[in-house]
Amino acid sequence: MKNAIIKTAIFAGAASFALAGTAFGQETAAAETSSPSPETAYIFNTLLFLIGGFLVMWMAAGFAMLEAGLVRSKNVSMQCLKNIGLYSIAGIMYWLIGYNLMYTDVNGGYIGSFTLSYAFDPVGGNALDTGYSTASDWFFQMVFVATAASIVSGTLAERIKIWPFLIFVVVLTGFIYPIAGSWQWGAGWLSEMGFSDFAGSTLVHSVGGWAALAGALLLGARKGKYVDGKVQPMPGSNIPLATLGTFILWLGWFGFNGASQLAMGTIGDVSDVSRIFANTNMAAAAGVVVTIVLLQILYGKIDVTMVLNGALAGLVAITAEPLAPEMWQVLLIGGVGGAIVVFAVPMLDKLKIDDVVGAIPVHLLAGIWGTLIVPFSNADASYGTQLIGIIAYGVFTVVASIIVWAILKAVIGIRIDEEGETIGLDKAEVGVEAYPEFGMGRV
Amino acid sequence: MKNAIIKTAIFAGAASFALAGTAFGQETAAAETSSPSPETAYIFNTLLFLIGGFLVMWMAAGFAMLEAGLVRSKNVSMQCLKNIGLYSIAGIMYWLIGYNLMYTDVNGGYIGSFTLSYAFDPVGGNALDTGYSTASDWFFQMVFVATAASIVSGTLAERIKIWPFLIFVVVLTGFIYPIAGSWQWGAGWLSEMGFSDFAGSTLVHSVGGWAALAGALLLGARKGKYVDGKVQPMPGSNIPLATLGTFILWLGWFGFNGASQLAMGTIGDVSDVSRIFANTNMAAAAGVVVTIVLLQILYGKIDVTMVLNGALAGLVAITAEPLAPEMWQVLLIGGVGGAIVVFAVPMLDKLKIDDVVGAIPVHLLAGIWGTLIVPFSNADASYGTQLIGIIAYGVFTVVASIIVWAILKAVIGIRIDEEGETIGLDKAEVGVEAYPEFGMGRV
Amino acid sequence: MKNAIIKTAIFAGAASFALAGTAFGQETAAAETSSPSPETAYIFNTLLFLIGGFLVMWMAAGFAMLEAGLVRSKNVSMQCLKNIGLYSIAGIMYWLIGYNLMYTDVNGGYIGSFTLSYAFDPVGGNALDTGYSTASDWFFQMVFVATAASIVSGTLAERIKIWPFLIFVVVLTGFIYPIAGSWQWGAGWLSEMGFSDFAGSTLVHSVGGWAALAGALLLGARKGKYVDGKVQPMPGSNIPLATLGTFILWLGWFGFNGASQLAMGTIGDVSDVSRIFANTNMAAAAGVVVTIVLLQILYGKIDVTMVLNGALAGLVAITAEPLAPEMWQVLLIGGVGGAIVVFAVPMLDKLKIDDVVGAIPVHLLAGIWGTLIVPFSNADASYGTQLIGIIAYGVFTVVASIIVWAILKAVIGIRIDEEGETIGLDKAEVGVEAYPEFGMGRV
Repeated sequence: MKNAIIKTAIFAGAASFALAGTAFGQETAAAETSSPSPETAYIFNTLLFLIGGFLVMWMAAGFAMLEAGLVRSKNVSMQCLKNIGLYSIAGIMYWLIGYNLMYTDVNGGYIGSFTLSYAFDPVGGNALDTGYSTASDWFFQMVFVATAASIVSGTLAERIKIWPFLIFVVVLTGFIYPIAGSWQWGAGWLSEMGFSDFAGSTLVHSVGGWAALAGALLLGARKGKYVDGKVQPMPGSNIPLATLGTFILWLGWFGFNGASQLAMGTIGDVSDVSRIFANTNMAAAAGVVVTIVLLQILYGKIDVTMVLNGALAGLVAITAEPLAPEMWQVLLIGGVGGAIVVFAVPMLDKLKIDDVVGAIPVHLLAGIWGTLIVPFSNADASYGTQLIGIIAYGVFTVVASIIVWAILKAVIGIRIDEEGETIGLDKAEVGVEAYPEFGMGRV
Repeated sequence: MKNAIIKTAIFAGAASFALAGTAFGQETAAAETSSPSPETAYIFNTLLFLIGGFLVMWMAAGFAMLEAGLVRSKNVSMQCLKNIGLYSIAGIMYWLIGYNLMYTDVNGGYIGSFTLSYAFDPVGGNALDTGYSTASDWFFQMVFVATAASIVSGTLAERIKIWPFLIFVVVLTGFIYPIAGSWQWGAGWLSEMGFSDFAGSTLVHSVGGWAALAGALLLGARKGKYVDGKVQPMPGSNIPLATLGTFILWLGWFGFNGASQLAMGTIGDVSDVSRIFANTNMAAAAGVVVTIVLLQILYGKIDVTMVLNGALAGLVAITAEPLAPEMWQVLLIGGVGGAIVVFAVPMLDKLKIDDVVGAIPVHLLAGIWGTLIVPFSNADASYGTQLIGIIAYGVFTVVASIIVWAILKAVIGIRIDEEGETIGLDKAEVGVEAYPEFGMGRV
Repeated sequence: MKNAIIKTAIFAGAASFALAGTAFGQETAAAETSSPSPETAYIFNTLLFLIGGFLVMWMAAGFAMLEAGLVRSKNVSMQCLKNIGLYSIAGIMYWLIGYNLMYTDVNGGYIGSFTLSYAFDPVGGNALDTGYSTASDWFFQMVFVATAASIVSGTLAERIKIWPFLIFVVVLTGFIYPIAGSWQWGAGWLSEMGFSDFAGSTLVHSVGGWAALAGALLLGARKGKYVDGKVQPMPGSNIPLATLGTFILWLGWFGFNGASQLAMGTIGDVSDVSRIFANTNMAAAAGVVVTIVLLQILYGKIDVTMVLNGALAGLVAITAEPLAPEMWQVLLIGGVGGAIVVFAVPMLDKLKIDDVVGAIPVHLLAGIWGTLIVPFSNADASYGTQLIGIIAYGVFTVVASIIVWAILKAVIGIRIDEEGETIGLDKAEVGVEAYPEFGMGRV
């Protein structure tokens, strides 16, 4: 659960209780008085957001490297530009509009407050009763928005123009993601209904995946990808870069899931953060192992890019509920995530949906899987409500995204012209080749 | 303010107060007794230095990757060597001489104590009244010295020999930076005058930038860079590596600015660290967005290497005062940083100052801008004093650096011979090519 | 000392004491009651494991990049696959078997309990008297196992098949490492004898190095490496990637050594963690500087790959005792580590032991050096016992590894066939080229 408002209330309560405990200290038992004070808990909670926040910020680099490694070299600079651009826009839009839309006065509804700009605690800090610094919470929430936008970047690589992409990011991070987020983490209608998505298998990963899918449908496949019913391989230009990107994402995910506990000012909370760290790691590990075994059996060779996506799919799958499952459940949830990648990547190609980096299997499909399976380990969740949430997020994000993509397509066009696609976006729009000195053995 | 001595006094005071508060606990109000104990605050403060320290240490990798990506492939191994070498030398010199020169007995003056070696707390720790572990403080301060040296490395790339560079680093990190640092963070004359440079726009970035500028002037431009009044583009060999370097630096900057709060043992301090995280991030984001827009308008293409430098310039600009500004001020400060890059890079080329990676616009010019603009958001600072500080640092660093560079030039020579420059420093001095198997499409 | 059982006892004692101190609070002095409460200490300790854990996890990326950079491009995808595979397997095996074998009921003996699966604290946490969350401890211990396996990967690169490698990792991380680890960190016979290995110069690095050496002996050198008594250079394909890997490892080592203090809930502990950070950094710096100077003197050129290994050797050397040494001792210990690399790399080539990335000098030899020299700074250790430990670990690991390698060789073969070695493992077993578009200038 990543609901700042609900959590705020809990913190305020805990703080009052603790203050009372201190005031009437002579009468309370030893165990109570030795709890971290509200101030100490406030520092721990804030620190969790800061550490989690910089780890998730680091995921922006992970996406950039993963995508730069998986596109052909003529489009690498563009992926770098898109990723640093989207991360920057996400921050500005989320401060300007998104945060309030997601967290202010949702009250069980469908949308928060449309108020310009979000104000942090003043210098020197503010009320103790929030339980954490508001700037730290904002920072932590902000990096999640950027993650959703990163997902779109990978799928649409190698043929989308820079400006329609950046404008879509403005809308996604300022409006679509925050409105969708308000339903659950903003204490909106899905939260009231009992939907469960701890760190965002659906809210972040599937939302990003749906938006990417909508874009892929309107954008069409890369030139030459599907010719005469055959799929042409367009191998990534730099596998160690893609591997680095995956390791960065894996590392960042400890912040993504771990700090979504939203508190570590009690031994219970920090112990839960620890469980989440271990579970998150092991879901990815299971994704890797299952992918390796399946690829060996099915193809006799182990395509490492599929294995990287297997790790990520394991991570996405556990994100909806990284705390409750026992380890054997974790391995099952993550392992199925890996299997989804192995089977879904060729299936998308059959549907002629050209997803350059495999983001749709990883983020959308494994996100759905992870969200659906929550009740398997968490008795508070129900399969029916999970399904309702998944469908609601899918319908809203796809419809909203298609509208935005369609407007962009009509007004400024979203796809690079044929010549630009042939010479590559780096020459066409960035003006900087990624590897000007490395001979091109194959294009 | 990053003044260990001043901070020490404050901590000691706070500790005494808190101890008193505990001793006479029955009489004090609940809110007071629940403050973190001096021991708990000590742990938090130390932890801030450790986390900040490892994040800034990581910036050494960022500079290495940024520079390795922006030089031509025949000089990449050399940049790797220089960066790991300078980081190592910085640590040793700062322990041997620099720290005492910067922090011991400056007392409002111009230089600290010239005492060999710096002693940490013994095993098992030491006095509580420092408020933090001395080794953690040293570690955090040390990584800043390395940052200053890294800046020099980028500007002088592709033609400086390894040994004069490493010897300059010895002098810079053992003497020039620490003496300059003592004026402000060591509680020297500029600190007494009211100069304000929170995390080092001037003390770290401009000092590095001035030293680089001095070196560039004595070293001259790369062969073939300026021919018949025309600037020859010498594009970087690996753009995703430069992008990775930028993301690493961005991540590290949370430690650079955030931990320069120097304390997180109270809710006020940790709340300020959070503000700094958010502001630091957004200044970089503004630098990115402004750069993208300006490049599109001016050139019709978005040179991603300029955008990367735009992010860094935004970060440098906010570093002088990352706490006080409201968000709209942050966006302005960072955005102007980005604009500086767009306009200054071609201007330096007109002056035939060959700054290979753009470090002078990013670190020197944006550093000056950030330092000058502090009074805009921080009422305690004055424009006049800021200007005095900027000039003082400029004059001292340029004069000291020119002397060192000139001696090195006279005694051992600083520039590789023409053949070495043609075949590249990797073959000439390192003996290891960076990419021996990748065909050279262009040199 | 990284002994969870022993530490547990200490924590429990501390907790009881502190609770007592609180219960009889009116009588105790102010200084005592202001110590962090057992709950606060529990959070700090757990946080140390989590931060240390994610930093060491990040070392998996470091090994992947280091190795990917140091092999030829035809084998790069394979190194990526092996590294993400081994990290995943290590986690699963350590959860399934390893942890209990290492830490449960060793009681001064030679092996722990062979019990399937390891159970974490339940959701919401558990008993305070452990002093930290069991999941955080498990996570931190687990990433060490992966490190040991990573070492093997580098040495055997470019000719081992994927499946025998992965199966060896299963045995190493499930059995060999945990049994060996139980002798010391599991409170086994070597721990009782007074052997000292703070963070694993021997337990992690030498064990990995011995296993790698055993594999190298059975596997033989790469085709064409030693021809007519001459060593053929087979230069790494991507030096900045290897540099990045080294910086990642350096960063991760702060977690590796620092969090091996196992506690930061007192000012003494956090102060020690700080000492360890500073010492760890400086040992690496000394390794770098010594390597640079020696290479200049001996060869007139500074092979940056040797310098990278010099940094790592400094790190490995200080790992056995990163807390006790004074700084001049640290520089000596780390510097000798660097020297070992310079002299041992050509020596291994003379012995025709083909260690692709130099892991044996770095991890095995510098690990032995670091372990042997512990009594130099730590009076509690004796040279005799250190020697016994080193020999015991060497004999056990070599014998166990040779048996496993020999079985694998006999049953499924460990070496790729000659054609596969010629075309490269990427084409032969992964099916994905690392850099399909970069012309091959040399193979």
